[in-house]
Amino acid sequence: MKKFLYKIVIESDSRRGRFFDLFIQILIILSLVAFSIETLPNLDSRYQSILNNFEIFSVIIFSIEYLLRVFLTKSFLKYMFSFFGIIDFLAILPFYLSTGIDLRSIRIFRLFRLFRIFKLFKYNKALDRINSAFNEIKNELVIFLVATTFLIYFASIGIYYFENPVQPELFKSVFHSMWWAVTTLTTVSYGDMYPITNGGKIFTTLIIFIGIGMISIPTGLLASAFSKTIKNK
Amino acid sequence: MKKFLYKIVIESDSRRGRFFDLFIQILIILSLVAFSIETLPNLDSRYQSILNNFEIFSVIIFSIEYLLRVFLTKSFLKYMFSFFGIIDFLAILPFYLSTGIDLRSIRIFRLFRLFRIFKLFKYNKALDRINSAFNEIKNELVIFLVATTFLIYFASIGIYYFENPVQPELFKSVFHSMWWAVTTLTTVSYGDMYPITNGGKIFTTLIIFIGIGMISIPTGLLASAFSKTIKNK
Amino acid sequence: MKKFLYKIVIESDSRRGRFFDLFIQILIILSLVAFSIETLPNLDSRYQSILNNFEIFSVIIFSIEYLLRVFLTKSFLKYMFSFFGIIDFLAILPFYLSTGIDLRSIRIFRLFRLFRIFKLFKYNKALDRINSAFNEIKNELVIFLVATTFLIYFASIGIYYFENPVQPELFKSVFHSMWWAVTTLTTVSYGDMYPITNGGKIFTTLIIFIGIGMISIPTGLLASAFSKTIKNK
Amino acid sequence: MKKFLYKIVIESDSRRGRFFDLFIQILIILSLVAFSIETLPNLDSRYQSILNNFEIFSVIIFSIEYLLRVFLTKSFLKYMFSFFGIIDFLAILPFYLSTGIDLRSIRIFRLFRLFRIFKLFKYNKALDRINSAFNEIKNELVIFLVATTFLIYFASIGIYYFENPVQPELFKSVFHSMWWAVTTLTTVSYGDMYPITNGGKIFTTLIIFIGIGMISIPTGLLASAFSKTIKNK
Repeated sequence: MKKFLYKIVIESDSRRGRFFDLFIQILIILSLVAFSIETLPNLDSRYQSILNNFEIFSVIIFSIEYLLRVFLTKSFLKYMFSFFGIIDFLAILPFYLSTGIDLRSIRIFRLFRLFRIFKLFKYNKALDRINSAFNEIKNELVIFLVATTFLIYFASIGIYYFENPVQPELFKSVFHSMWWAVTTLTTVSYGDMYPITNGGKIFTTLIIFIGIGMISIPTGLLASAFSKTIKNK
Repeated sequence: MKKFLYKIVIESDSRRGRFFDLFIQILIILSLVAFSIETLPNLDSRYQSILNNFEIFSVIIFSIEYLLRVFLTKSFLKYMFSFFGIIDFLAILPFYLSTGIDLRSIRIFRLFRLFRIFKLFKYNKALDRINSAFNEIKNELVIFLVATTFLIYFASIGIYYFENPVQPELFKSVFHSMWWAVTTLTTVSYGDMYPITNGGKIFTTLIIFIGIGMISIPTGLLASAFSKTIKNK
Repeated sequence: MKKFLYKIVIESDSRRGRFFDLFIQILIILSLVAFSIETLPNLDSRYQSILNNFEIFSVIIFSIEYLLRVFLTKSFLKYMFSFFGIIDFLAILPFYLSTGIDLRSIRIFRLFRLFRIFKLFKYNKALDRINSAFNEIKNELVIFLVATTFLIYFASIGIYYFENPVQPELFKSVFHSMWWAVTTLTTVSYGDMYPITNGGKIFTTLIIFIGIGMISIPTGLLASAFSKTIKNK
Repeated sequence: MKKFLYKIVIESDSRRGRFFDLFIQILIILSLVAFSIETLPNLDSRYQSILNNFEIFSVIIFSIEYLLRVFLTKSFLKYMFSFFGIIDFLAILPFYLSTGIDLRSIRIFRLFRLFRIFKLFKYNKALDRINSAFNEIKNELVIFLVATTFLIYFASIGIYYFENPVQPELFKSVFHSMWWAVTTLTTVSYGDMYPITNGGKIFTTLIIFIGIGMISIPTGLLASAFSKTIKNK
């Protein structure tokens, strides 16, 4: 009996195992969709009760799955404190916690349920190639992040001195300028903050050109890492 | 006679075949331009009748070409249900359907005529290299798309919790926040929605940096795949 | 005498030749700066006369240089109809044409003088590597441009149908929508036009994701072409 | 005694040396954070005095460190005029200069303190790989910068002629148009300036497409340079 369930719940080589995995994955996606629909304003109370019932149904299924995983895995403690074990637990936790306490504030914990979608990749071999490519360039990426942080800080201080005197409401402090620096260097730039002084514009031009060079680094690194990975294939 | 037409319509090795192909391709482009001009507001009725006449002329040519292709191809069923066969049919269908029924609503089907432009590439060998490069990294691209979808969903929920309380009109629901997530992570960002809370700005910064890393992945993958393809050349 | 001038004007191996080249290049840059200053509104008439005098001075030098080049080059016709020969001529033409005729409308020809800056690269060997990398992927780049044109057209028609009914002033016709398509797919997006309907937003999301894949293509191609070029170095 | 201090201050192989380096690095980061907090408007005077005291404390530590470095390095002149020697000096200079003179205007010199963060990378070997990759493509990057400057200038003049007649307040001169050219070609585009004429839009489309090709160049170059660097690893 235990061996039979193990093949279905834990393994996914058999037909029944694959079916079980697919069922759980579809249920996760549906519960995510249901969760999103709940945030719609002026939602009909009829739909709300359907969504609540579906939430109860999916949590029951996820709880049974979690208990089965704990029961079936040889070393249940190892599973419970593994990455997926904790995520499986956090995916059902908010539901049980919400009884008695204020629902609104706790709902944010449901975000963690999202991580469950990573399960979809579990057996994908291409993911290993991406992982090994990222591992190859780990150190360089850390340098890139530190250098980017430095550039953002430098840009924030510079723009603060140029723009604060003329736009004190927008460039209030170095911290407020950081939002400008992040959105500009990543070329997101919503248009909510931009330099209007000549000095600020010249400074921004210099910063953007350094920024373009920097943004090229991770792409260049990944390209070369993938080249090595694909050659090994 | 059939062999003579086959060389002109289906093949494009002979001088006449190339001329026929070029004629059809120019006609397609002209009919696309005509279609675009028709959408101009306050169009002179004189121009409208010229465009209508040109539409009739091009559909007649396309219909003759379609019938010739059906008649000349050995296995005409195979052609009719092939990718280009269906597109050739859809390119002339709206015209014949529009008689009697409301023109306005059906005109959207004309979009499919556009696919005909792919014919321009039919014999291009460089296209094969691009195709083989994309095939090389197919699995990785699927993972990228799934991961991006996940990130967009995660970003949508996060920004909803940060911004909904202060901007309930813009960040109405998780679905409304998705539009923000898509435009921000792709750095399109029109400036119609952006975070104004400190929490939302810090969250956006984190999400953008993960997003930059992600957007680098397809470029890096393609670069490495092209490296392999060009080496084989 | 002719040989002496040839070494200075045409060649740049000798010390005098390098000095002459540098002098001309600095004069070009200064004349470009002067040209830009002239466009400033409310410019002091004193500065204007200085700029005019400098313009006369630089055109005289450029004219002497042009005549020397024509006189010194063995086959002067070959030079006059070469790429740089035509540019050298166009750089001085507007000045001589402007006498008698309305200055304002002809000044646009001065744009061509800009091309002269390419001379700065004349002997640079790294430029050859960039050229050979572009040559390597020429065909693929043409496909990319055709495919991008297709995508822009497709996006323009799609967004026209979604947004024209609710934003007829912005999405007036397929041509007006093309501006939106170009700025969106290149992630420039000024924020002057954006979809507000749900259908338009979903359509834009799809188009952006295809667009990201496309924008990756030239970068990926160049990366692989440079890899080959650098290996040959 | 000198040998003992040398091991702590200059070298970082010993446990004490590593501790000293870490302490200085954390102090630098904290002093940067303190500096940013000082720019916050309406800051409580109580916090301001804490920040001032922390500033005095950190400058004392940095001064002692600087003097120790000068005293301990064999050739102290070589250190004082090295890159890090000058930065170490500039990091403490503003504090001593500020006594007696107006604080506000001199504070901008504190920006240089930021460069100290580069020390964090001092021993990182991955940084060498990034450096060697950049060295590999140095010449090509210079060409890219010159070509980009040319394109920005060309775009500025073009858009000035198209947009100045209808938007004289925004596209005032070629210099004002340069800000548009920089933000558009880097796809930053805040939305503060954009073409509204048909000619300006068509010109922008052409310029953007050339710009995309250009922005691909540094990424492509870096990718190929990293490929070589990683292969050597």
